[in-house]
Amino acid sequence: MASVEYAKGLEGVIAAESSICRIDGENGKLYYMGYPIRQLVEQCSFEEVTYLLLYGELPTIEQLTIFQRKMRHSRPISAPIQAMIRDFPRDSHPMELLQAVVSYLSGYVEHKIQHDAYCNCRITLHQVSQLATVVATLHRFRSGKDYVEPREDLSHGANFLYMLHGREPSELEGTIMDDCLTLHAEHSFNASTFTARVVASTLSTCYCSISAAIGALYGSLHGGANEKVMDMVDEVGELSRVDAWLSAALDQKRKIMGMGHRVYKAKDPRAIVVEGYLERLGAEKGETRYYEILKRIETLFRERMEEKGKPIYPNVDFFSGAVYRLLGIPSSLFTPVFAIARAPGWLAHVLEQRSDNRIFRPKALYVGHQQREVVPIEQRS
Amino acid sequence: MASVEYAKGLEGVIAAESSICRIDGENGKLYYMGYPIRQLVEQCSFEEVTYLLLYGELPTIEQLTIFQRKMRHSRPISAPIQAMIRDFPRDSHPMELLQAVVSYLSGYVEHKIQHDAYCNCRITLHQVSQLATVVATLHRFRSGKDYVEPREDLSHGANFLYMLHGREPSELEGTIMDDCLTLHAEHSFNASTFTARVVASTLSTCYCSISAAIGALYGSLHGGANEKVMDMVDEVGELSRVDAWLSAALDQKRKIMGMGHRVYKAKDPRAIVVEGYLERLGAEKGETRYYEILKRIETLFRERMEEKGKPIYPNVDFFSGAVYRLLGIPSSLFTPVFAIARAPGWLAHVLEQRSDNRIFRPKALYVGHQQREVVPIEQRS
Repeated sequence: MASVEYAKGLEGVIAAESSICRIDGENGKLYYMGYPIRQLVEQCSFEEVTYLLLYGELPTIEQLTIFQRKMRHSRPISAPIQAMIRDFPRDSHPMELLQAVVSYLSGYVEHKIQHDAYCNCRITLHQVSQLATVVATLHRFRSGKDYVEPREDLSHGANFLYMLHGREPSELEGTIMDDCLTLHAEHSFNASTFTARVVASTLSTCYCSISAAIGALYGSLHGGANEKVMDMVDEVGELSRVDAWLSAALDQKRKIMGMGHRVYKAKDPRAIVVEGYLERLGAEKGETRYYEILKRIETLFRERMEEKGKPIYPNVDFFSGAVYRLLGIPSSLFTPVFAIARAPGWLAHVLEQRSDNRIFRPKALYVGHQQREVVPIEQRS
Repeated sequence: MASVEYAKGLEGVIAAESSICRIDGENGKLYYMGYPIRQLVEQCSFEEVTYLLLYGELPTIEQLTIFQRKMRHSRPISAPIQAMIRDFPRDSHPMELLQAVVSYLSGYVEHKIQHDAYCNCRITLHQVSQLATVVATLHRFRSGKDYVEPREDLSHGANFLYMLHGREPSELEGTIMDDCLTLHAEHSFNASTFTARVVASTLSTCYCSISAAIGALYGSLHGGANEKVMDMVDEVGELSRVDAWLSAALDQKRKIMGMGHRVYKAKDPRAIVVEGYLERLGAEKGETRYYEILKRIETLFRERMEEKGKPIYPNVDFFSGAVYRLLGIPSSLFTPVFAIARAPGWLAHVLEQRSDNRIFRPKALYVGHQQREVVPIEQRS
């Protein structure tokens, strides 16, 4: 048996064809449907990018107007969903709530539509809209505050901040939040997206697929790196302590969070964008400490690694946590915000999987007992 | 790109090692942890088999006593879960509720335990216990009836029927229900079990893993075949019509539900057991019609296929739907009952995945646009 070889974690194994996302790791490039992420983030809203992911093409003004109206109109959550959030045990993690809510939301689609939803999850788009409302509402309830009715005149990102804080964000805050969602909207196969596709391959609903993907994203090997980056920043505390802290950390062979990426061999293109946001937002808010600490860690760490001939660059998580904190988002919501952003990508993969489906059913390599006899219970020891 | 080959649906690809289940399809044999399914079903309760799947060995009397007490003590569901079931939209499918409830249940584990739950989902066993209560309660609420408090003196299967109907089942009914759960407790990798492992591979909680697996089982390519068998039986109506019905169906090249299995090239060993139950239960209840119709379809179909040199045998779904109907379980609960039964198998795979983990992250074969430029929205057409 030991001679049979297989790829653990399916590493390097092609699981399906896809036209959604291209990652050019060597050159640090990321494309959604062929469009460079930099151009999308500079020229398009998150809603526009959601349209792109679901339909494969960027919308015209007319298409976007209709689509945006639909998404914005879907933002409010019903009384039973609000009750579910209110009753959700305080000790539990928001990701558990999100997973439960998405399955639950499914029930609120009319039966006729629900049937179509097997074929076309574009019409179940309210999941994308409502995830933001659910996350904001959970935070408000846990802070002893009331539900904030979403606004239709704000972008997806700006409205999220509005619901979270109960006040309209600055233009810069709203833009940065919306762009951060775009930057996280899609990233080809990973454990959560693959989960969405496996569930979709059984012809389950797209709610069930997205709910399952949220469960995967919750895992500590998947989401959550930007939380740990901020733990690191808090531990460092101030710019003057970076050099000593990093030397000690490297001597102890500690992992420097937010550095390096399985795919990117150059600086993560999303990190470059988010770094710029951190600088601008810090300047607007008069809080430049995070930016300074992170840039110093990046520079020093790169120097140290280049000495060893192993250059390592920041990934998107390195700067995003600090941006979120400056936007007033608590660390416990970082992974839920990731889920809000990734929902369109997951839906795109569900649609693609269905368009040329084969149920995922890999093989196990059996390594257990061949055969044994059941001994009566009184004779067991 | 077209020249790159890969296995669609990961067919034939080894995804992981496993010691849990061995299927000898050629000879129609199924083993859990090395024990033949026939011996397990004849000598062990579902709770005993659950212990086997979670600990790898059959329990001693003392171990089973403690384990059983714990499982039975966990059967009742709390008021918020009852409220969630009551408020669940009537149009939605029970599988959507189950998926939501499992995520939600997670929140009711104390935080300390929840942390351990990442490492050891044996202690989150109340999921297995409570799924049966949730399914029974949903059915009662939808029928305008009250919640039935579970009983600790009944087996898992018998208690499920008790909660569902509000009256104690006969000894035969209770035994058959419990054994049917055992027969469905595990079946190596398939889309739902693989989903549970993919989610577990991110180090997400076992609740999130099981919830995701439920989402996959909901898909029409996965669960639900025994519902369709009963649709067929209802269409046939009576024994005297089988021959004409089958001839017409074969002429129309219709698929005969519950026949054939991807893995078994002989009669599914579970089908043999369930067939016996159907005969005995039919005799007890004075309703032998289902058994007679199904046996006649089996015989005729086998003859027709053997003429073509393609023998095809019944799988477990061929007889299980009729057994469930005689137990008073409505068709809409067949797949939820499958989930109740499979939960220990899923948990076993979650534990095994964690014991030697690598996150599942296969590759996509990119076949989309290489690069294109974002055109300003007013210039798009």
